[in-house]
Amino acid sequence: MPYTTERRVQFRDTDAGGIMHFASYFGWMEEAEHEALRSIGLSAMDDNFGIGWPRVSAQCDYLGPIRFEDVVTIEVAVDRIGGKSVTYKITIRESDRDVAIGKVTAACCQIGEGGKIVAVPIPDEIRRRLETL
Amino acid sequence: MPYTTERRVQFRDTDAGGIMHFASYFGWMEEAEHEALRSIGLSAMDDNFGIGWPRVSAQCDYLGPIRFEDVVTIEVAVDRIGGKSVTYKITIRESDRDVAIGKVTAACCQIGEGGKIVAVPIPDEIRRRLETL
Amino acid sequence: MPYTTERRVQFRDTDAGGIMHFASYFGWMEEAEHEALRSIGLSAMDDNFGIGWPRVSAQCDYLGPIRFEDVVTIEVAVDRIGGKSVTYKITIRESDRDVAIGKVTAACCQIGEGGKIVAVPIPDEIRRRLETL
Amino acid sequence: MPYTTERRVQFRDTDAGGIMHFASYFGWMEEAEHEALRSIGLSAMDDNFGIGWPRVSAQCDYLGPIRFEDVVTIEVAVDRIGGKSVTYKITIRESDRDVAIGKVTAACCQIGEGGKIVAVPIPDEIRRRLETL
Repeated sequence: MPYTTERRVQFRDTDAGGIMHFASYFGWMEEAEHEALRSIGLSAMDDNFGIGWPRVSAQCDYLGPIRFEDVVTIEVAVDRIGGKSVTYKITIRESDRDVAIGKVTAACCQIGEGGKIVAVPIPDEIRRRLETL
Repeated sequence: MPYTTERRVQFRDTDAGGIMHFASYFGWMEEAEHEALRSIGLSAMDDNFGIGWPRVSAQCDYLGPIRFEDVVTIEVAVDRIGGKSVTYKITIRESDRDVAIGKVTAACCQIGEGGKIVAVPIPDEIRRRLETL
Repeated sequence: MPYTTERRVQFRDTDAGGIMHFASYFGWMEEAEHEALRSIGLSAMDDNFGIGWPRVSAQCDYLGPIRFEDVVTIEVAVDRIGGKSVTYKITIRESDRDVAIGKVTAACCQIGEGGKIVAVPIPDEIRRRLETL
Repeated sequence: MPYTTERRVQFRDTDAGGIMHFASYFGWMEEAEHEALRSIGLSAMDDNFGIGWPRVSAQCDYLGPIRFEDVVTIEVAVDRIGGKSVTYKITIRESDRDVAIGKVTAACCQIGEGGKIVAVPIPDEIRRRLETL
């Protein structure tokens, strides 16, 4: 079952072309991903597990413009759970029209000595919860 | 010949993970693309041609973290010029290490009646200049 | 009666100091102001009235840090309605602690010939509604 | 002698009103402040001194709009050095027209136990350097 949330286009996310700026979609995708994590009892900065999720890749296809005060639904689905990473597919819709489709892969990481970021296997408990998304 | 510019990681572009936020790379990619356009006498909001360049797709692979005050070079190359769109490949390097590789496709558009955005063939003069990048 | 809304600190709004970045509070203030306007049937880009509200001044006092995933309430009150401008006072609270207090003055403007922005007297209908905030 | 730098209005910092978004000026102010610090051998995240500079207050008066690709000069002057804080005055000019004047006060802080942020007296060496700005 994908996780679904809602957003409204804010003025600071528009640009002089009169539409939502393309980079701001990635902010939304992350917000929706983090909401989805909270819905299964996880956090993107998890003190219990000592785990963070830096991005390995991010992409977005833009299917049509959206404008100030438009309301969209954002759907987050787990596309693939690997050994040390997870890929989300994010679909953004206005009314029943898809306006953007994104994909984000995040690596399961621990912060080691001197701030070094090291990819680690996804802990079983986290994996079990991600599988419910 | 790709166009090359330089940036420094600004504090507002870092996040609580202590690194440059993944969405901010897309801001840099656009800034570098717009610099490249200016270097060939074009603008991303071109009053002479009545042309704008909304994004059709954007993606980035993150190869290693960068931190506050790191300095990078950003290289913009034209990857493909289509009938109504152009794709740029953007490579971000710190010292001699690639830290991110992005690709952005922008559609050649005119603003029509009522703010409607319509893709149009790339004008010859613009195409000729893009081919020099 | 001030208008009240809620926000959660998003990852993209944090910085490498581990706290919400000071500039992002201004984004929140504007979002809350625009919600308040919608609650009285107005929009920050109002096609009916042909009115926009560029900022004349903005300020914020920061009383304590907030961090990723903290939830705050944001209260928007009209501080003063002038002839051609309105000043909002915005109070941001986490639990019962004030974490930031801002003030924003916006000018009532029309877009004239060639994109020129001209301050105009606040239309009576808009003034009546602002007085209810 | 104030420190002076230059910026160009980037597309991501514009809004649907066709002008530079008011919150983005605060990003510029911080960038210019950090450049000024580097010019006197300091950093906003200083590992040698273990000092950071969270904001106590920030304000900006907007004197006229600026648009995509406009170039401005940004002048940073130290307005006041207190016991535990410093106030900067930032003036943004396009050609010879002032377009914005800002003031930012930052507290000299150390990160203590559990991430607690504690204001401390400005170390003598840092104070001496700030006095040259």
